[in-house]
Amino acid sequence: MATAATPSAPDGAPAPEPVPKQTKQTVDPYNVTGEVGADGVVKAIDYNKLVDEFGTKKIDDELLARFERVTGKRPHHFLRRGIVFSHRDFETILDRYEKGEPFFLYTGRGPSSDSVHVGHTVPFEFTKWLQDTFDVPLIIMLTDDEKYLFSEKKTIEEVQGYCASNVKDIIAIGFDPAKTFIFSDFDFVGGAFYRNIVRLSKHITLNQARAIFGFNESTNIGRIHFGSIQGATSWASSFPHIFGEDEKQTVGIPALIPCAIDQDPYFRMTRDVSARLKFQGKPYAKPALIHSLFLPALQGPGTKMSASIDESAIFMRDTPNQIKNKINKYAFSGGKVSVEEHRQFGGDTSVDVAYQYLRFFLEDDDELERIRISYENGEMLTGELKAICIRELQKYVAGFQERRAKVDDETVKLFMERRPLQWRGNPKAPVVVPKVVEGEGAEAAAAAADGEAKMTKNQLKKLEKQRQAEAKKAQKAKEKAEAKEKAAAAATAATTAAAAPTTEEDKAEQTADAAAKTEKTEAAAANAAAQEA
Amino acid sequence: MATAATPSAPDGAPAPEPVPKQTKQTVDPYNVTGEVGADGVVKAIDYNKLVDEFGTKKIDDELLARFERVTGKRPHHFLRRGIVFSHRDFETILDRYEKGEPFFLYTGRGPSSDSVHVGHTVPFEFTKWLQDTFDVPLIIMLTDDEKYLFSEKKTIEEVQGYCASNVKDIIAIGFDPAKTFIFSDFDFVGGAFYRNIVRLSKHITLNQARAIFGFNESTNIGRIHFGSIQGATSWASSFPHIFGEDEKQTVGIPALIPCAIDQDPYFRMTRDVSARLKFQGKPYAKPALIHSLFLPALQGPGTKMSASIDESAIFMRDTPNQIKNKINKYAFSGGKVSVEEHRQFGGDTSVDVAYQYLRFFLEDDDELERIRISYENGEMLTGELKAICIRELQKYVAGFQERRAKVDDETVKLFMERRPLQWRGNPKAPVVVPKVVEGEGAEAAAAAADGEAKMTKNQLKKLEKQRQAEAKKAQKAKEKAEAKEKAAAAATAATTAAAAPTTEEDKAEQTADAAAKTEKTEAAAANAAAQEA
Repeated sequence: MATAATPSAPDGAPAPEPVPKQTKQTVDPYNVTGEVGADGVVKAIDYNKLVDEFGTKKIDDELLARFERVTGKRPHHFLRRGIVFSHRDFETILDRYEKGEPFFLYTGRGPSSDSVHVGHTVPFEFTKWLQDTFDVPLIIMLTDDEKYLFSEKKTIEEVQGYCASNVKDIIAIGFDPAKTFIFSDFDFVGGAFYRNIVRLSKHITLNQARAIFGFNESTNIGRIHFGSIQGATSWASSFPHIFGEDEKQTVGIPALIPCAIDQDPYFRMTRDVSARLKFQGKPYAKPALIHSLFLPALQGPGTKMSASIDESAIFMRDTPNQIKNKINKYAFSGGKVSVEEHRQFGGDTSVDVAYQYLRFFLEDDDELERIRISYENGEMLTGELKAICIRELQKYVAGFQERRAKVDDETVKLFMERRPLQWRGNPKAPVVVPKVVEGEGAEAAAAAADGEAKMTKNQLKKLEKQRQAEAKKAQKAKEKAEAKEKAAAAATAATTAAAAPTTEEDKAEQTADAAAKTEKTEAAAANAAAQEA
Repeated sequence: MATAATPSAPDGAPAPEPVPKQTKQTVDPYNVTGEVGADGVVKAIDYNKLVDEFGTKKIDDELLARFERVTGKRPHHFLRRGIVFSHRDFETILDRYEKGEPFFLYTGRGPSSDSVHVGHTVPFEFTKWLQDTFDVPLIIMLTDDEKYLFSEKKTIEEVQGYCASNVKDIIAIGFDPAKTFIFSDFDFVGGAFYRNIVRLSKHITLNQARAIFGFNESTNIGRIHFGSIQGATSWASSFPHIFGEDEKQTVGIPALIPCAIDQDPYFRMTRDVSARLKFQGKPYAKPALIHSLFLPALQGPGTKMSASIDESAIFMRDTPNQIKNKINKYAFSGGKVSVEEHRQFGGDTSVDVAYQYLRFFLEDDDELERIRISYENGEMLTGELKAICIRELQKYVAGFQERRAKVDDETVKLFMERRPLQWRGNPKAPVVVPKVVEGEGAEAAAAAADGEAKMTKNQLKKLEKQRQAEAKKAQKAKEKAEAKEKAAAAATAATTAAAAPTTEEDKAEQTADAAAKTEKTEAAAANAAAQEA
């Protein structure tokens, strides 16, 4: 384990031959460990070093200010606190959002066990926030094939079992079914997606794959090939049921991929190929990325939580009592050895796991700052800090469990159906999306060509229901906006039509305006309906 | 090209540095060339050497005698003449046929061009004969992904275009739609098939793949992985719509693969994995193979016809005149340089391309033997031999063109639909096949699980029509058999029920008997209907 120190030689015994356990920091899709020093102690992962090594860009204040200007939304606390700390081409995505050009969100999970922990749900929480912010399609890939290829013992049936349960966990985060498509590779590989997989795999040499992933002669050929599957998901043309059949349009639509930094190598490779590839003269859009830190294991910031080590993680099935016990017992403390010393010198929040978790789970910046100061100057003791952490995590896990209980098989089916999605993008610059083929003939043709399942009556009914709910919501927002407008007009004659909205409330208004606009134009409504059909 | 001799140095010129063009025979899925001697002349491919190198078995008289005993059918002239000359586990297939245990035929084509030549159609002719003989499902794979991965320039759209036209050529051979499923990888990869692809790829190391195919560091990862796709097609569990959803049953059903010997490496690899793999304790059936020689290029037996070299091949679109001109102009002759010499010493049929083609296309053994003797003793001249070859090839190509003209898009759709197939296997030991899931619920579940397209009403209608035609045929056969039986009973009281039928006629009787039997048993009929539904 990451925090295990090399035991020193017992007194009096002859000095054993020095066994330098010293190793460099390793971060790739298969391994995450901080540097192990000469003393055998694992250091915290050096994320700045990763940014340099990988050639990504740090997310800076300027970028965040632009984000806020463009989206009218305060950056998520993960962004404000450097938890989501690095990116590739996130500016390009903001450009597109500004101009109303389509893009989509793509994230995923390798279903390696039934036990989902908070380290797994955190990136999904952030992704949900991005989806709510940008109002764009979200594609969630479950790499059951990867987990089978990379495991010694697991059977296909086992990983498919994990999949079935993990998808419910993911849905419990609260994604909007109208704009989210979840798939498992074992079920979805085929058709347009498979064509893109082959397209990508043709343009990656063994040499390149080795340089990125470090394969050797005993590596199985499935693993060597797997990068093309993870990569091809970042091409919009893999999803004709969402982005339409016209590949000349869809090759230009990029993905924005929120992921932990260890997944970057896959997309570095994909970006490289995208840059070289053209479809009928039109270049493939490179996927953009925003990278997050790992949620540290309970034992400390040198590694991430592991589903296979129960004491390393807070699981989403844990009871309030289990959470309390785990944090009290295992959470690595930055406090001093005695109360006296602690009062005198204060604790170290940079390594204190309870404090680190609060950076993830406590939204209130002021409260977090109060805690930091209080702990660092020795006022707050470790026990008190842990109590706050326990309270926040219990709250978070309970909320999840409540939603998770409501996710049934029907809901899963709804999310995993191949179907058009509904999204609006930037309300100030309505998104221009290629039309999804409609009508029975086209549908049959598409099904024949891609082996895609048609929607059953039941599913169509569900979609119709969603659409109606959506329309009702828009109508309500419109009414509210109109009422507000009236009130505002009575109070003042000033308008702010040209200014970019900067608060949540402003944004709500704008959305309502956009909804109202849609209501007004018959043509626009027909167009929207066509897209949603 | 294969027949290009190294030009000798012009008289008087200083002897150039010896450039030894001498190379060993190369036969793998990507290259076929005979040994090039020190004189620069390409030798005929040494097939015995291949049998030794690959570790296959020669098809001998004993095996052919057994084939005839078991099937009641005289071996095809390809078998009699050593054109289909080698095998792996063909005995096992005969065992299964004898016992009424299911197996299926699997063959394929890489759609590399629109121009299909006689070298392409020959293996399909043989496959059709096997299908007619064994009455088992036939699966034909079009490896459009392979052709894209292995070509420098071709786009996916181009190879898909070749596919669309090649499938019509294949259908024109005369396959029975009720028991033939044709698919292209780009369309069909997914679901159960994809799971098997991943399963296979997990059990092949880079090292093994290299040893078999000789990849290097610049090989793209798609190529390295491709063997798992070609291999996974030999597992019956890849086709739940044909063999049913119960994998524990289907893993035991082997494929018999008729192919040219250069495809053997793919299946050597697959057999190796099959032997090591188990599904819930049950081993995977190893594919069996029967290997054929290559149809030589017009230039001689050192290589095979090439679609990209017009003068090397007789194309299926060639006019009678083109066929005549090509053979007269290009077909390598085993005749002597002058008529006098030819009359005195006779021709060499072992290298004469016109004669070699007659081995493939002239069914009559006696006539072929007369031609051989006459040519070898110098009676028959090259011109006369070529004239016979031209006549036979014109006949063959004309027959093909006639059938090809009738293949429309509807027919293609019928062959490429995911649907249950209808087959009977050995009429003396009715085949035991796992039931294909039926009913709407099961269908929907399968579609949801595998992303498989459901059958449209139109397709169901077609299948129903086929079924009715089939039933009519069976009824007629039954009536004929009854009439015959009556006549036979009147003439003699002897019966031959226990003896194995050895002639075509006997076999027809047996089939009729089997059909009659089916008619008699209500339960059996219901069972058959369920299987066909």
